[in-house]
Amino acid sequence: MADVKLTGQHWIAGSLAPPREESFRATCAETGAFLEPGYGEATPEQISAACEAASSAFHEYRNVAAEGRARLLETIADEVLAAGDALLDRCHLETALGRDRLMFERQRTVNQARLFAQVVREGHWTEPRLDHADATRQAPDCRSMWLPIGPVAVFGASNFPLAISVVGNDTIAALAAGCSVVVKAHPGHPGTCEILAGCLNRAIRRCALPAGLFSLLHGVSHEVGQSLVQNPRIQAVGFTGSLTGGRALYDAVGRRAQLIPIYAEMGSVNPVFFFPQALRNDRWQPLVAKLVGSITAGCGQMCTQPGLLLGLKQTEWQELRREVQAKVTDQTFTLLHPGIAKAFRQLTAERGAQAISITSMAAAQKTSESDCCVPGVIFEATATELLEHTHWEEEIFGPSTVFVECEEVQQMLAYAQQMKGSLTASIFATDDEIELVRPLLDVLQTKVGRIIFNGFPTGVQVNHAMMHGGPYPAAIGNMTSIGTGSIKRFARPVCFQGFPERLLPETLRDNLSAPTLRMIDGQYQLGSAVI
Amino acid sequence: MADVKLTGQHWIAGSLAPPREESFRATCAETGAFLEPGYGEATPEQISAACEAASSAFHEYRNVAAEGRARLLETIADEVLAAGDALLDRCHLETALGRDRLMFERQRTVNQARLFAQVVREGHWTEPRLDHADATRQAPDCRSMWLPIGPVAVFGASNFPLAISVVGNDTIAALAAGCSVVVKAHPGHPGTCEILAGCLNRAIRRCALPAGLFSLLHGVSHEVGQSLVQNPRIQAVGFTGSLTGGRALYDAVGRRAQLIPIYAEMGSVNPVFFFPQALRNDRWQPLVAKLVGSITAGCGQMCTQPGLLLGLKQTEWQELRREVQAKVTDQTFTLLHPGIAKAFRQLTAERGAQAISITSMAAAQKTSESDCCVPGVIFEATATELLEHTHWEEEIFGPSTVFVECEEVQQMLAYAQQMKGSLTASIFATDDEIELVRPLLDVLQTKVGRIIFNGFPTGVQVNHAMMHGGPYPAAIGNMTSIGTGSIKRFARPVCFQGFPERLLPETLRDNLSAPTLRMIDGQYQLGSAVI
Repeated sequence: MADVKLTGQHWIAGSLAPPREESFRATCAETGAFLEPGYGEATPEQISAACEAASSAFHEYRNVAAEGRARLLETIADEVLAAGDALLDRCHLETALGRDRLMFERQRTVNQARLFAQVVREGHWTEPRLDHADATRQAPDCRSMWLPIGPVAVFGASNFPLAISVVGNDTIAALAAGCSVVVKAHPGHPGTCEILAGCLNRAIRRCALPAGLFSLLHGVSHEVGQSLVQNPRIQAVGFTGSLTGGRALYDAVGRRAQLIPIYAEMGSVNPVFFFPQALRNDRWQPLVAKLVGSITAGCGQMCTQPGLLLGLKQTEWQELRREVQAKVTDQTFTLLHPGIAKAFRQLTAERGAQAISITSMAAAQKTSESDCCVPGVIFEATATELLEHTHWEEEIFGPSTVFVECEEVQQMLAYAQQMKGSLTASIFATDDEIELVRPLLDVLQTKVGRIIFNGFPTGVQVNHAMMHGGPYPAAIGNMTSIGTGSIKRFARPVCFQGFPERLLPETLRDNLSAPTLRMIDGQYQLGSAVI
Repeated sequence: MADVKLTGQHWIAGSLAPPREESFRATCAETGAFLEPGYGEATPEQISAACEAASSAFHEYRNVAAEGRARLLETIADEVLAAGDALLDRCHLETALGRDRLMFERQRTVNQARLFAQVVREGHWTEPRLDHADATRQAPDCRSMWLPIGPVAVFGASNFPLAISVVGNDTIAALAAGCSVVVKAHPGHPGTCEILAGCLNRAIRRCALPAGLFSLLHGVSHEVGQSLVQNPRIQAVGFTGSLTGGRALYDAVGRRAQLIPIYAEMGSVNPVFFFPQALRNDRWQPLVAKLVGSITAGCGQMCTQPGLLLGLKQTEWQELRREVQAKVTDQTFTLLHPGIAKAFRQLTAERGAQAISITSMAAAQKTSESDCCVPGVIFEATATELLEHTHWEEEIFGPSTVFVECEEVQQMLAYAQQMKGSLTASIFATDDEIELVRPLLDVLQTKVGRIIFNGFPTGVQVNHAMMHGGPYPAAIGNMTSIGTGSIKRFARPVCFQGFPERLLPETLRDNLSAPTLRMIDGQYQLGSAVI
């Protein structure tokens, strides 16, 4: 069992580093009480030390063979499990997320690390390409593969304190690619971050890898993050969080002398389009529970929460809306921290003033248990309003959605054509409606990262085919942030021209025993087997 | 034979559009005379019209099957050849590049279009991934592939008026991916651009594709380019040119409401490291002609020109330097246009004031044939100077290089550790020196896009393994700008979840007859064949 004593300190290359002074504490979302210990801002010297250590460690780690990286990822997974109840308990206190949800999220975190271990062992992701010399064309021998980019700054999300945090998607992808990481701890769950940092440190030590591979810096101000992404040692940034936060980091990167890639996933409204037959003949009834579940999953604090529902003026649509409204507005939800709850109250109040119909006022009255507690809120709008006022497609983070009633399918298409980028869009339709769906589907392919057919958008799979991203403002950078495709965000191709075999990376030598997929003179081969 | 009458007008979606007034003309690099016709700035309305047309055309073209796109690329290649001498003659007038070079470059342009046609037909580049549903894990069916990103703004380079211009790398990659393009014509060779636009228009018409697929806008001011990348219809930017130009466009993109990817290739100093044995025993002698050729290829106006040569204090190094100096400074060169020649004179004069040794002054006196004519200039510096003054690694575009004499191999390594990102680095060494090379090679893998062993960096191959890019300031974005890997810069992955077969793109259906590489449940298959 892991040590659960929290120190309130940063972790820099395997050593504790105290803040100059305490500046914030986590809040118990359920009671509103402050939690021990206090945390403070990383100083410029500490940020610099973490980045220097990450740079030194990178130059060592980038030469560690795939097997060594894979073992690190698996050891991290083991350590996260070994942190046991201490991790789950602290995480629950800091986020109010239920134990079942956290158990599920921990398993996803562990599976993610193990899946990336497999990806690293196979090595296909490095996309080796060999073009042999061709004397007739005077073409030299060129061989390329994707190599790790350098030290990565990682910013996790408030809403996935395990799977998108210190040992989350970005850290795992960066370590898998061969990079070192400096994580900016999320101030909403600093204790969880500290426990996870312990897991990472132990795993690195057990694998006899350089301690500088990982550092964790705390801070509640924007300065720590801004300063981190502007450190010249940092070579890429991975961020999950709000649009405001992501854009601010993008702008900070833009002020660097050396520009570097920044990848951000910033959430979206995730529209759901209901075609009329999909609701008819009582088909709407089983959708009620699923839709309520999707709206309220994680208390509505999901990047892929369905925040905009478009249907046609029909009895079944109205019944679906009525039932969903009743079930969502009848509940109260304890949000991750008081800041999120405050923003939710403010944004829903503003929207309430604009809405044709707001059905949550009664529910809103009965919330007073803690600052983090809010009611579910459902809005109604017409398609005309949606098409004329872009504020309807601004994400409200929390248990809220908007039912938009359309006069005709054409209005759904018109919205799709003008909508901003989104992580997902969902389409409900029957087989009979497929031809009706095509024009909408065609537009959505240019607007979102993932399109779901007859399903709701929450529940992102960590697999090979996942695309969790989409055009801005959903994301920055056109590669997924979740799933195995994300590894390339922290790598870049390097070409070796005219090299002798023994100076080449093993993956690029003529004879390769490992069954890694390679393109050789334009033909794919698995290891030495021609296919 | 193509029509060679130049109009001085923009091409917007297959129609000519006159400038409001003439603002510039091309200059005959050899005589300094202005060339007919006059060109002018695209107006905001014309830029907007081009982007609107590109957006409409994109929505049609993105659904054109691979075969249709491949045929367009091949037809473009045919049209470029059919433009014949008219193209080469005008291009020679505008750039002073010799006929042999232009014939070679035209062939590269044609080969590039044909190679991408093959890439499009094979479809491997779309990276199809199928993860079937797994009821035991409650995992839905997810399938993804890379799809075209949208209308692309393309900025070609002054130094490759055919291969990196209107029908150059970015245009071909974007059309291959399924995007429409709006090209900002290079003001150094507007007539060449106009002829090439004719080739594109004819090819689009012959393939019965929408005219809005391509537009060409002229302009000598920065406003046209800035306005183009800020147009909301534009979804990606491809640029080749100067660091100043690339950075300005990056900053302009950063002021958009919707951020989009920008890819820029901006040249670099391309250091060459000579290990001592590589020059000994007369090995230096055959290198003289090759090095002179690489320094002066295209009159030194190559992104990959070797602008920094590092060797050890040894007789052979000094002999190599002496011979190269003699051969380079003995020549004069007609640069692409007066602006480049002026910058060359100014930068070499500034550097001359700083240099320990400058060997070109005599040569400089005899240049007066035209404003575009400059001498070759060779500088000498010590490793200590190089390590202390970063101005030595600023690129001077033109026939110039710096010989840096090092006291020991350690100084070469020290430079590599502190150097900025570069497109390439070259290492000359014998088999006996391989262990000596490893530490340097290790560092260079984190600094450049391509490393050449016992060869010079000019001569970029258009193949599968090429990486023409590198960390900033060599490039923005971590994907190659030349070679088949560049196609993904104008695409992004889209995931289809829970879709019925007939609504899926053909490439993602269970049964695929085409032999396209796909990852199915983590295993690679070529079409339906398991590998």
